[in-house]
Amino acid sequence: MNAERKEPNYLFTEKQVADKSEIARRFLDGRTRLNANVDKADNFLVKRFYNIDHNTYLEGALPAKYKELMGLVASACLRCDDCVHYHMIQSYRLGVARSEQEESLNVALVVGGSIVIPHLRRAYELLAELYG
Amino acid sequence: MNAERKEPNYLFTEKQVADKSEIARRFLDGRTRLNANVDKADNFLVKRFYNIDHNTYLEGALPAKYKELMGLVASACLRCDDCVHYHMIQSYRLGVARSEQEESLNVALVVGGSIVIPHLRRAYELLAELYG
Amino acid sequence: MNAERKEPNYLFTEKQVADKSEIARRFLDGRTRLNANVDKADNFLVKRFYNIDHNTYLEGALPAKYKELMGLVASACLRCDDCVHYHMIQSYRLGVARSEQEESLNVALVVGGSIVIPHLRRAYELLAELYG
Amino acid sequence: MNAERKEPNYLFTEKQVADKSEIARRFLDGRTRLNANVDKADNFLVKRFYNIDHNTYLEGALPAKYKELMGLVASACLRCDDCVHYHMIQSYRLGVARSEQEESLNVALVVGGSIVIPHLRRAYELLAELYG
Amino acid sequence: MNAERKEPNYLFTEKQVADKSEIARRFLDGRTRLNANVDKADNFLVKRFYNIDHNTYLEGALPAKYKELMGLVASACLRCDDCVHYHMIQSYRLGVARSEQEESLNVALVVGGSIVIPHLRRAYELLAELYG
Amino acid sequence: MNAERKEPNYLFTEKQVADKSEIARRFLDGRTRLNANVDKADNFLVKRFYNIDHNTYLEGALPAKYKELMGLVASACLRCDDCVHYHMIQSYRLGVARSEQEESLNVALVVGGSIVIPHLRRAYELLAELYG
Repeated sequence: MNAERKEPNYLFTEKQVADKSEIARRFLDGRTRLNANVDKADNFLVKRFYNIDHNTYLEGALPAKYKELMGLVASACLRCDDCVHYHMIQSYRLGVARSEQEESLNVALVVGGSIVIPHLRRAYELLAELYG
Repeated sequence: MNAERKEPNYLFTEKQVADKSEIARRFLDGRTRLNANVDKADNFLVKRFYNIDHNTYLEGALPAKYKELMGLVASACLRCDDCVHYHMIQSYRLGVARSEQEESLNVALVVGGSIVIPHLRRAYELLAELYG
Repeated sequence: MNAERKEPNYLFTEKQVADKSEIARRFLDGRTRLNANVDKADNFLVKRFYNIDHNTYLEGALPAKYKELMGLVASACLRCDDCVHYHMIQSYRLGVARSEQEESLNVALVVGGSIVIPHLRRAYELLAELYG
Repeated sequence: MNAERKEPNYLFTEKQVADKSEIARRFLDGRTRLNANVDKADNFLVKRFYNIDHNTYLEGALPAKYKELMGLVASACLRCDDCVHYHMIQSYRLGVARSEQEESLNVALVVGGSIVIPHLRRAYELLAELYG
Repeated sequence: MNAERKEPNYLFTEKQVADKSEIARRFLDGRTRLNANVDKADNFLVKRFYNIDHNTYLEGALPAKYKELMGLVASACLRCDDCVHYHMIQSYRLGVARSEQEESLNVALVVGGSIVIPHLRRAYELLAELYG
Repeated sequence: MNAERKEPNYLFTEKQVADKSEIARRFLDGRTRLNANVDKADNFLVKRFYNIDHNTYLEGALPAKYKELMGLVASACLRCDDCVHYHMIQSYRLGVARSEQEESLNVALVVGGSIVIPHLRRAYELLAELYG
């Protein structure tokens, strides 16, 4: 079963987020630099995977913003700071409220347990910069 | 930051789900039987944890249905069939469409990788019984 | 830094545990049957690993019973029912009280989160048979 | 950097493996039945993911047999019995020797620790049926 | 089943530990700073979770020191350096001997496998500062 | 079943790798320094574990280079940068081609999902330094 997919409508550019938050800026710069190196390798399967990954978060049966928040929950449960940062930034760009980000992190905390707490602390630091 | 929390409005009872799906019925019966045994132990911390767990999925800043779907994504990424079944049943009871469940499972598949596939297969079996 | 290691003093044999609990009996029988097959393969590294594994839980700087309970916590956090059963049986054989097993499971629940709950339910079923 | 990809040359069909091993037969039958149900859903992203998954294990810069064994190591480390069975069967079909499967499982055991042991026991049961 | 819970008796304050070990000092300072930010958000569920987390490690059926060591084993198995540092510091504050910390790390190493080794190396660095 | 084990034949020393790649140099230096501290502790079980770990990757039924690549796949799936770096360096020292490293990382990416991507990016940075 497949809903039509289309690009979400971002309220903010990555540049605007980077101007607002130093943590976001550092993350986005590092990601851009490292991805350029991955792109240069031109690996067929990596490109296919990046493409499928991009498609997953498009507008569809579920609004893009909820799928970014799902990506956030999964990233926090699996405890990857880079992925947590990425989905928090994407959610912010799609107009997600701070309280919605906090409730998503609550799901991750309860499902994933206290081992998630160090990542929660760093996520709240980014929240403060984005919404402060 | 805290939104008011309240119980969600279920469209179906657990009994109605169990009547519709044999997989759901077996899961719910086993869960009821084993939880009765946990309740008998009356462990303070377990009760507190169950309570916090219940509070996490109430209506709040985010609609309950999206939090159940987040629980589904987390459960599928962390690869726990019981938890996947539980959140799929809860989502169904809250009126989530099949296409919304599938898109949530897509997030879990892409974040969690092919190791999620055996759980995806079993999840689709439950989807077929619930929505078929 | 190394304390002297020696075999712990078991209060009960595996046979006595199997006679008391049907869950334990099934686990121990399956484990014996499958290990016999592993032993037949006579794989050098597997034997070395089993040996180091055995050494880990001997009496040492820490009493064996606390190391079995640590094994229980690790197993519950990493969500392996077989390993949970094994360390609960070993702890029982070493005279660990039910309340001590419950507190160990509480550590696992809080560190590991709600994803541990299905394993907790099955662990409490074994507790009921062992201490009931 | 991309080597040419092509289908590997299987020495045995799935049917021949199922005739040799009861464990393999049950796994393959269950997988076929559940995949038919997934296929019916015709989910765009799932199909894309299955396609990329298939491409990963083709002959390329690395012989297919070593990539199946890598899949086995990853599956055992991440502790998924279905995935372990699948890659052991695929490796067998590509002519991998029992000693090569055992050494791959050794890597998984040492990297992943004693939590892998219950899966190792079940893997050795399949080894005995395939190579016995 | 519930034993009475009470606060453990610490032999050292966090300040004394920070004075002894530079690694501990950096960890404790970062944690204090980031927790202040989490506290400011005043999220109901996070507060509840922190509260339950605190309760888990109190004196009870099991001495607090063994529960901190269980927290250490779980943290090392789940591979979280911050959590490993936290529980090592707490254990030290409760008078745990170095040999007891090492044996706990041995359980984590054997259960969790060689993937734990980088965390073990960093844990031994902290051991050297605390007990050196 | 056990093949004869013997030390693999390295094409490059660790020193030569460190001279070629700054990332490798920093990793190897840190590892040497921290391991010296672990060695000083002279813990019986840690030494046994290190020994078994060393034995796992010797030439045997499988060529050492494929076992190092299996270690790489496992490390990337379990998401440990230090372990990823270690096995990439070892593979390079054994003459593994860049395309072989990339295909191994593809297996890890597909099995482990997008949560592996941040580690993949850092792995490609090391690839560029080693093979660039």
